[in-house]
Amino acid sequence: MSEERGQDGTRRSSGPRKAQEIFDATLDLLAAKGYEGLTVEGVAQRSGVNKTTLYRWWPSKGALLGAALTGTRRLSLEPPDTGSLQGDLESLLQTVVTLLTVPPGSDIAVPALGAATQSPELAVHVREFFADRLAREQPLFERATARGELPSDADPMLLVDLLAGAAWLRVVLRQLPVEEDFVSRAVRTVLKGAATGS
Amino acid sequence: MSEERGQDGTRRSSGPRKAQEIFDATLDLLAAKGYEGLTVEGVAQRSGVNKTTLYRWWPSKGALLGAALTGTRRLSLEPPDTGSLQGDLESLLQTVVTLLTVPPGSDIAVPALGAATQSPELAVHVREFFADRLAREQPLFERATARGELPSDADPMLLVDLLAGAAWLRVVLRQLPVEEDFVSRAVRTVLKGAATGS
Repeated sequence: MSEERGQDGTRRSSGPRKAQEIFDATLDLLAAKGYEGLTVEGVAQRSGVNKTTLYRWWPSKGALLGAALTGTRRLSLEPPDTGSLQGDLESLLQTVVTLLTVPPGSDIAVPALGAATQSPELAVHVREFFADRLAREQPLFERATARGELPSDADPMLLVDLLAGAAWLRVVLRQLPVEEDFVSRAVRTVLKGAATGS
Repeated sequence: MSEERGQDGTRRSSGPRKAQEIFDATLDLLAAKGYEGLTVEGVAQRSGVNKTTLYRWWPSKGALLGAALTGTRRLSLEPPDTGSLQGDLESLLQTVVTLLTVPPGSDIAVPALGAATQSPELAVHVREFFADRLAREQPLFERATARGELPSDADPMLLVDLLAGAAWLRVVLRQLPVEEDFVSRAVRTVLKGAATGS
């Protein structure tokens, strides 16, 4: 058999039958028990798929969760098109804030992204998840440049990282409530600057 | 005995004798084995302090790591005073980037901050760590306002969260190298804005 395996040891193909059921079971178990409580055995029980089958596809719980994170339909978010860069970025940041603060999405997103620091196999998928999202957000920035709202040498990744990063800091590390005007002020700051006279 | 316990169940007092040795052992074990591999038993072995003593002070590994994170002398960083807001923020962000990318500090900081998503007891200390840092950075922003570089209604927490958050996104979630001009461009963006003509 000529299996190809990716950087994380996961087979590169469409996955086993019942993939969505397996991903659902994985994400539900993560939401219920956290990353430490997540086990391949638990996913096997919950999904009714043989443990051996799971291990054949994913060598560890990190790899399994990573596949679930990129393979689930639950986290597929369409980038906005509001007609203005300010509007698009506010919509984008609001989506991130919602993902990090509103269950059931936040019960999955926060522990899964946090656990990227614990599992290199999961980290590979998290990297892929963010690269995929940025690629899908690219047209938003191309429209802004075409409308003359951004200079042609603007750095979309930097803008996204400033905004999404601020949400992560505020919600996950500071564990403070996100004020009602957080989104609009954050976007205004990266677009117009905080300095006097800017 | 009238013990006071904080929100995380940890005793509020100066800690046991050999606290720095315990914290060192905790952070070394985290760096070597990650958060999942960290155990109170392991810290007991490494520090030569009885397991029962450790559990008497910290009810879980999350609480122990949290205490180590806020109690260690290894992560005590003085806020900069370079004479300009741009310079101070660049120095601040460079410190964050270094903390997240350069061992041995990054082997502690990344898994410890990531594990805040796994342990509510650790999260309490992470919150405290960030609140303490912001309080110590406050004079930096007061000087900038006095110099006329920031309006008086500027929001220091938002500026710090945008910058430090961007570093977290780039390093931990995207797992991309931090370009040489990342720090200066990130600071310029939050101070002057990315939009055309800003």
